[in-house]
Amino acid sequence: MRPIYLDSNATTRVDPEVFEAMRPLFVDQFGNPSSKHGFGASVGAVVKKARQQLQALIGAQFEDEIAFTSGGTESNNTAILSALEVMPCRTEVVISAVEHPAVLTLCEHLEETRDVKVHKIPVDRHGRIDVDAYKAALTPHVAIVSVMWANNETGTIFPTVELAELAKGVGALFHTDAVQAIGKFPVDLKSTAIDMLSLSGHKLHGPKGIGALYIKRGVLFRSLIKGGHQERNRRAGTENTPGIVGLGKAAELAMKFMDEDSKRIKSLRDRLECGLLQRIPEAFVIGDPIERLSNTTNIAFENVEADGLLLLLDREGIACSSGSACSCGSLEPSHVLRAMNIASTAAQGTIRFSLSRDNSGKDIDRVLEVMPALVEKLRNSFPTCSGYGEGI
Amino acid sequence: MRPIYLDSNATTRVDPEVFEAMRPLFVDQFGNPSSKHGFGASVGAVVKKARQQLQALIGAQFEDEIAFTSGGTESNNTAILSALEVMPCRTEVVISAVEHPAVLTLCEHLEETRDVKVHKIPVDRHGRIDVDAYKAALTPHVAIVSVMWANNETGTIFPTVELAELAKGVGALFHTDAVQAIGKFPVDLKSTAIDMLSLSGHKLHGPKGIGALYIKRGVLFRSLIKGGHQERNRRAGTENTPGIVGLGKAAELAMKFMDEDSKRIKSLRDRLECGLLQRIPEAFVIGDPIERLSNTTNIAFENVEADGLLLLLDREGIACSSGSACSCGSLEPSHVLRAMNIASTAAQGTIRFSLSRDNSGKDIDRVLEVMPALVEKLRNSFPTCSGYGEGI
Ligand SMILES: Cc1ncc(COP(=O)(O)O)c(C=O)c1O
Ligand SMILES: Cc1ncc(COP(=O)(O)O)c(C=O)c1O
Repeated sequence: MRPIYLDSNATTRVDPEVFEAMRPLFVDQFGNPSSKHGFGASVGAVVKKARQQLQALIGAQFEDEIAFTSGGTESNNTAILSALEVMPCRTEVVISAVEHPAVLTLCEHLEETRDVKVHKIPVDRHGRIDVDAYKAALTPHVAIVSVMWANNETGTIFPTVELAELAKGVGALFHTDAVQAIGKFPVDLKSTAIDMLSLSGHKLHGPKGIGALYIKRGVLFRSLIKGGHQERNRRAGTENTPGIVGLGKAAELAMKFMDEDSKRIKSLRDRLECGLLQRIPEAFVIGDPIERLSNTTNIAFENVEADGLLLLLDREGIACSSGSACSCGSLEPSHVLRAMNIASTAAQGTIRFSLSRDNSGKDIDRVLEVMPALVEKLRNSFPTCSGYGEGI
Repeated sequence: MRPIYLDSNATTRVDPEVFEAMRPLFVDQFGNPSSKHGFGASVGAVVKKARQQLQALIGAQFEDEIAFTSGGTESNNTAILSALEVMPCRTEVVISAVEHPAVLTLCEHLEETRDVKVHKIPVDRHGRIDVDAYKAALTPHVAIVSVMWANNETGTIFPTVELAELAKGVGALFHTDAVQAIGKFPVDLKSTAIDMLSLSGHKLHGPKGIGALYIKRGVLFRSLIKGGHQERNRRAGTENTPGIVGLGKAAELAMKFMDEDSKRIKSLRDRLECGLLQRIPEAFVIGDPIERLSNTTNIAFENVEADGLLLLLDREGIACSSGSACSCGSLEPSHVLRAMNIASTAAQGTIRFSLSRDNSGKDIDRVLEVMPALVEKLRNSFPTCSGYGEGI
């Protein structure tokens, strides 16, 4: 049986066209774009093209607003550390409580080791940011706001454009982790107050190990990784040319098919979601019902251990992920579910299905076919599994 | 005419076998190794194999001493910043004057922005490190020594194993930028006092955008890029799995062919070097005549502008690089040539030829055939070009 991949928020398959675009950059056009000879020059041209493809996808005004990095994590780290460096008189950072570890872990580290205060803005039980708390945290002490555009676990979309406007009001820089947003819905950065934006290739059918940081012209910036003059001194190190070309192509394809794809993906997602809720009792959707990525559904199955369910699904050739991780023998709900105040009996049974343009109606049929029995089986074999929540 | 690539210290062609090893990781085995399902697990296994291939090449005692990064620059930055963080009572760094910008630029930045003192150990006119000055700089204030194993411009090899022993004496951490060394001569880290080592995939026929940092077990370490738990918390961010697999394969091939290749490459290099010196007057080799990479020759042609020569060579389809860069209309010798005290009339005409296993005797024949006339032509057309050195 063909395996079914419903974990596209973790990573996506490289589009075969993306791979074809990258292919010549390995063995044939292998030059270093910084070199002055022919081997370098031809590669410089394809890098330029890729930058323009990405520029088009995110609606950047200038192509030089894009610096290629090794991925979303590096971009996030770079943006936040840069802001603290260029605004030494401001020592506060505003983030949401549901950021990706690439933001959270860094911020926690900064709080522990430097004189930095981090405001974690709470979310409600649908994962919506508390805008009043956000406004209250915005003071002239804030160097940077970093909030994600869309959440990787729940798909909840923050009102990022408005949040950026508010940050302007106190002169703070505004960065958004748009790793889950870019390629999924249209974005036009030039018409926003967003100063910096992070994205990652492998979330939009591009390759792993490549990402980008958008830095609006005029925004003060300090590079994280220092060395050569690559990327206009904003990211040192020999350019990952196949990765850059792959990301460029992935951006082009995302743009070309976004409209059509996102409609089709949404209808598959909705069919999956409704189907599961109809067939399985004591299950509900986690996340904002309206402002949500069209490819994501995060469903809590009460009184089920998500890890066990993942295992059974995996045996059926169905890949998805859970909102809880096993730590010290008990299931620890993710920081996102905790921030949303999801009861532990539900949180521990939370499964994320994330779709992409690679999915078909058959995939959904199959999941709808097998899931009810699996949940049933687990519920029967662990009649007291709600006790797992104890001590969390 | 087939172009001739003699710029392998800038970057190398991905070996077709390396590309074949990477290929399945894009479209087919695209899973995220952190995922708990089958798509992830199979990729986890190939990442493990790649780590072991690299372990074998560098003679690390344990495979978990290797953390994959995005390249040599990131590895260098990570090592130095980590040491300063884990040894807060020590605020000095020892480097050589001829380090790559990935070390130099970072250290200069640290001196400007933090309370860090950087000792730049001088080299002699052959590029050999001043061991007495090195010993004198080693005090209990030193957090980390970072010296390159082999120099990218001249190929000069430092006595790194001994330098590491000396650093131990004062309790400093010892890091080596081995980006130009790994794959070119055998290395057995477990028998040395080296604590950390940086390497980069694209210098040994692996892909761009991937590198590694060796961190000896027991060495205190703080990650630079923070986020998820990848690479045992030493490098956050979704793993660049095709890159990792490519680097692993490149390591395997380097190990397999090193003996044979390096002998063949050395004889080609020697033939090129002797041939040029015989045919072209007022030319001499720059770098340590004995302790030198077998693939590199850096030759100063007196009274020639290297940029002009590169251009003429490029027209003949021959790619190499110069030791000077044009800045503000005059030729500025590289920091390496300046540290070696090379007279500006020579430095401005310095060309680096760097070979790899992709080169053949025919490549060398062709260079020997065309170079004399090109140098002659430039010398005749710019009879006063020695004046370019003025003001440098
Ligand atoms: C919202 C979000 N931010 C950042 C990242 C990190 O991206 P990468 O793994 O490419 O570094 C991810 C994915 O892992 C993500 O989902
Ligand atoms: C000695 C040395 N160190 C570091 C680097 C940086 O490696 P990368 O460009 O892969 O980041 C290079 C090559 O550019 C180098 O030659």
